[in-house]
Amino acid sequence: MESTNLAFALDTFYLLISGALVMWMAAGFAMLEAGLVRAKNTTEILTKNITLYALACVCYLLIGYQLMYGEGGSDTYADAADFFFQSVFVATALSIVSGAVAERMKLISFLLFSIVLAAFLYPVQGAWSWGGGFLSAWGFVDFAGSGIVHLAGAAAALAGVIVLGPRRGKYKDGKPQAFPGANMPLAALGTFILWFGWFGFNGGSQLQLSGAGNADAIALIFVNTNSAAAAGTLGALLLTKLTAKKADLTMILNGALVGLVAITAQPATPSPELAAVFGFVAGLVVVVSILLFDKIRIDDPVGALSVHGVGGIFGLLIVPLSDSTATFSGQLSGAAVIFAWMFFTSLAVWWILHKIIGIRVSKEQEYQGADSVDCGVEAYPEFVRSSPR
Amino acid sequence: MESTNLAFALDTFYLLISGALVMWMAAGFAMLEAGLVRAKNTTEILTKNITLYALACVCYLLIGYQLMYGEGGSDTYADAADFFFQSVFVATALSIVSGAVAERMKLISFLLFSIVLAAFLYPVQGAWSWGGGFLSAWGFVDFAGSGIVHLAGAAAALAGVIVLGPRRGKYKDGKPQAFPGANMPLAALGTFILWFGWFGFNGGSQLQLSGAGNADAIALIFVNTNSAAAAGTLGALLLTKLTAKKADLTMILNGALVGLVAITAQPATPSPELAAVFGFVAGLVVVVSILLFDKIRIDDPVGALSVHGVGGIFGLLIVPLSDSTATFSGQLSGAAVIFAWMFFTSLAVWWILHKIIGIRVSKEQEYQGADSVDCGVEAYPEFVRSSPR
Amino acid sequence: MESTNLAFALDTFYLLISGALVMWMAAGFAMLEAGLVRAKNTTEILTKNITLYALACVCYLLIGYQLMYGEGGSDTYADAADFFFQSVFVATALSIVSGAVAERMKLISFLLFSIVLAAFLYPVQGAWSWGGGFLSAWGFVDFAGSGIVHLAGAAAALAGVIVLGPRRGKYKDGKPQAFPGANMPLAALGTFILWFGWFGFNGGSQLQLSGAGNADAIALIFVNTNSAAAAGTLGALLLTKLTAKKADLTMILNGALVGLVAITAQPATPSPELAAVFGFVAGLVVVVSILLFDKIRIDDPVGALSVHGVGGIFGLLIVPLSDSTATFSGQLSGAAVIFAWMFFTSLAVWWILHKIIGIRVSKEQEYQGADSVDCGVEAYPEFVRSSPR
Repeated sequence: MESTNLAFALDTFYLLISGALVMWMAAGFAMLEAGLVRAKNTTEILTKNITLYALACVCYLLIGYQLMYGEGGSDTYADAADFFFQSVFVATALSIVSGAVAERMKLISFLLFSIVLAAFLYPVQGAWSWGGGFLSAWGFVDFAGSGIVHLAGAAAALAGVIVLGPRRGKYKDGKPQAFPGANMPLAALGTFILWFGWFGFNGGSQLQLSGAGNADAIALIFVNTNSAAAAGTLGALLLTKLTAKKADLTMILNGALVGLVAITAQPATPSPELAAVFGFVAGLVVVVSILLFDKIRIDDPVGALSVHGVGGIFGLLIVPLSDSTATFSGQLSGAAVIFAWMFFTSLAVWWILHKIIGIRVSKEQEYQGADSVDCGVEAYPEFVRSSPR
Repeated sequence: MESTNLAFALDTFYLLISGALVMWMAAGFAMLEAGLVRAKNTTEILTKNITLYALACVCYLLIGYQLMYGEGGSDTYADAADFFFQSVFVATALSIVSGAVAERMKLISFLLFSIVLAAFLYPVQGAWSWGGGFLSAWGFVDFAGSGIVHLAGAAAALAGVIVLGPRRGKYKDGKPQAFPGANMPLAALGTFILWFGWFGFNGGSQLQLSGAGNADAIALIFVNTNSAAAAGTLGALLLTKLTAKKADLTMILNGALVGLVAITAQPATPSPELAAVFGFVAGLVVVVSILLFDKIRIDDPVGALSVHGVGGIFGLLIVPLSDSTATFSGQLSGAAVIFAWMFFTSLAVWWILHKIIGIRVSKEQEYQGADSVDCGVEAYPEFVRSSPR
Repeated sequence: MESTNLAFALDTFYLLISGALVMWMAAGFAMLEAGLVRAKNTTEILTKNITLYALACVCYLLIGYQLMYGEGGSDTYADAADFFFQSVFVATALSIVSGAVAERMKLISFLLFSIVLAAFLYPVQGAWSWGGGFLSAWGFVDFAGSGIVHLAGAAAALAGVIVLGPRRGKYKDGKPQAFPGANMPLAALGTFILWFGWFGFNGGSQLQLSGAGNADAIALIFVNTNSAAAAGTLGALLLTKLTAKKADLTMILNGALVGLVAITAQPATPSPELAAVFGFVAGLVVVVSILLFDKIRIDDPVGALSVHGVGGIFGLLIVPLSDSTATFSGQLSGAAVIFAWMFFTSLAVWWILHKIIGIRVSKEQEYQGADSVDCGVEAYPEFVRSSPR
């Protein structure tokens, strides 16, 4: 057998395994969000998460991939492997949305929005950068999608949150009320799953394993991804401990996640130590960001806007510190373009949905919980005490 | 180093990773079933699931593999990798049984049955097809086991369910009563795990990654597996929403799973769009099937008979639509042979167990729950309200 | 492309995937321990588990790796891949400690100890064997770390447990009281995760996939790892059923884990049948060991001392039965050296922490639970009945 064939086989396998790990991240988002909402909205958030993944795959297959990459193809790995790897990224953007709008959005409205995002909003902007469009011509660097995936998802989410408004009772007399998540082990499990899956997300984005320098690059990407997440965990722990005197697990989990988001824009050029510094700072930033969003009454039950939005912008802006091919202005422009496109088109879609079918459940339904209203299945029928809260 | 050696190393690694993913499916079944039973039977179903995996591996090592494949061996990957990959499939068949007989079977009887299935029933019929026997001579096509694994498991389960009877109180005045699962996040997690692991189940069944065409085939298998599951999710969502007005998560999860089961018989020949059609139809079928089984009072707490039995037959019968080497009659014959063998031999074994040691717990024990009776450990000692239900 | 490059790429990928699987084991320990503690200490054990992983990675990056391996490097895979694979092992040792000292240790003390272990205690002894030091010169064989990782972690844990004392109320009138774990599905999930991740732990420790014999060796390692775990499950099931009349799931899970620990010292030389025998005996041993530790009032909430300590020693001592390069005396010496180093240095560190900041929470705090005291976040705010217990 010729080694060209072997390289083709190896690169294909590498991309498939990476894609499977990214698919697995869908489980991570599902567990994270199910852990952070209240019991009465748990079945619904699970329903959203598995359905958004399904919708993302089908819509991207039928429309999105073609829009984003045209007929392009590589001869270094199987075309189907490329499609698989690209398609599992779409769901990540949608999972970010589902977390931010949790506990008060109608299921049907979310699913309709998901179709639009997966088939149209996401691939159009993806074409501008990864598809070889004008953002790539501007020198915008976003290796694995701090902007193209994470900021994009967060911008769509922010538009939804604004149209939707906060959960009832979240802000009383100007002060945010604690709505504790029902199941911390699930939230922690979700974070671990995402951390694990991120090795596929970032590691696979090199797109080729064989060929000079690729294996070294991918190995460094694994180390940097891990270092940034580890340091993000510690940054958030430190700041939450200093300010709140307690080691708030939800903040710590978000610290790990924001470290991952931040390194995603360029995991191949920093040293592991610098990646740790990036992650650590991101872990500090996310704690401040979550508190600020709460202060301005942007209600985001899982912290997704801070982790993926603020973290995504932060990740884009630090790229020039380790990658001389990127410029601060190029990164800022890219972030602005992605944000503007995703935010304003999403705002329009949410608004149209709001006007036609409504996007928010009724007051009574919100009190009752989405599980009984939309799903007819309680998440924990034997555990929860008495009436919903 | 010669590239022949490299191909051997690559193919071995590919098979080992695939096998590890299939092993991981055992966790998926455990979580799925633990989520769908009532709290009082949770520890026992977990005990069954980890023990059946252990028994399957040991029995297949000592007896089953030899029965199924004889001394055959390949020189394209390590023999031990082949054994590993084949052995983890056995547990899948058993996991199907454990779900269908949940909440009323004696642990010891289940474990004894597991030994017989893993050491004898499964490998004998496996030898007829994958082992190169008469079913393969008939032109029966079952790429990764819609019939050989899933239908086989469901047939054994059906026999058990018939001997066992429904759970007490399940059918009152001719109407099925809802026995809600205690933990929906676990059920969703289990489904995600199975989806993820299925990339190994189907992707690994190509058996070789190097060599012309293999990498392309495996990449297409990944895409088709994913497409069918995604579309199955949507099919079940649509039908359950139309008929029950609610997005019933348990139906949706079974939709994803039946999409996976259905594409398993031949994931290498359909286009991704056709795979999605197959999965979508399977998602419709499974909803109808679950309702029908309940109508005829075949009590299957997790829907395993519908997902793996009906889904497995459906998967076998659609193969000729994309694979010209298969015929409808060949597929039907194969399905009939597998079903008949597994059903009647299992019926005999269940009957013998029933006569000698009994397979069903007593009325009091069923009320009390299997956890305290068989395991002595409550699954959620601090959560559950008051008395069992 | 030359096949040397391909081998480099393949070996790097193999090591990275193996490392990612070991990273995933951190989730396994987190779930296992979260399932086995009481509800009121769940958030804290999750916090410990994600933070210890983060600390392990950062400390090993900054100090530990250099101490353990110096500047050495291989030219058969990327240096960064080697670093990644080695660094994820450190967290495993720490996870063992977190389980044994659960439910009564101050979070801050645990984290400070973690820094010392990851940066200093673990790498120093690792240098003696894997780093090429005097233990390797003595002919001590510990392929993947039954001693260097598992016994090391357990020895550190034992020292902590001794300084710390048992949980309040654990031993009344000389008899151990049952403190049931709050969430059995999590404990089972954790065990499955660990089993799955262990294929990376042992399989990756061959360190090279290409090259004559390596693929065959790795395939056998996968089979043996699986066989030992399966048989360990059955051994523990049998003994716990015979002695306690019940199939105690926590014992069964520990049986699976001890099978894994026991085969880790040498998974490449036994036949799969012999590996099963080793695992089975280990499963018997762990049940006896857990009961004995309770008898002498060494309170270990998750059984970590028995699984990793006793199991680790057992694993080291059986190596000569299948590997003629090892001697019983060499193995015993290695075990003694590792135990002595880890135990006494850890004892000193725990003692210093005890004297300076205290390592144990107050009586009131222990009653209240670590979640509210240290984390300010309840794990299950809607499930748990009334007051803590």
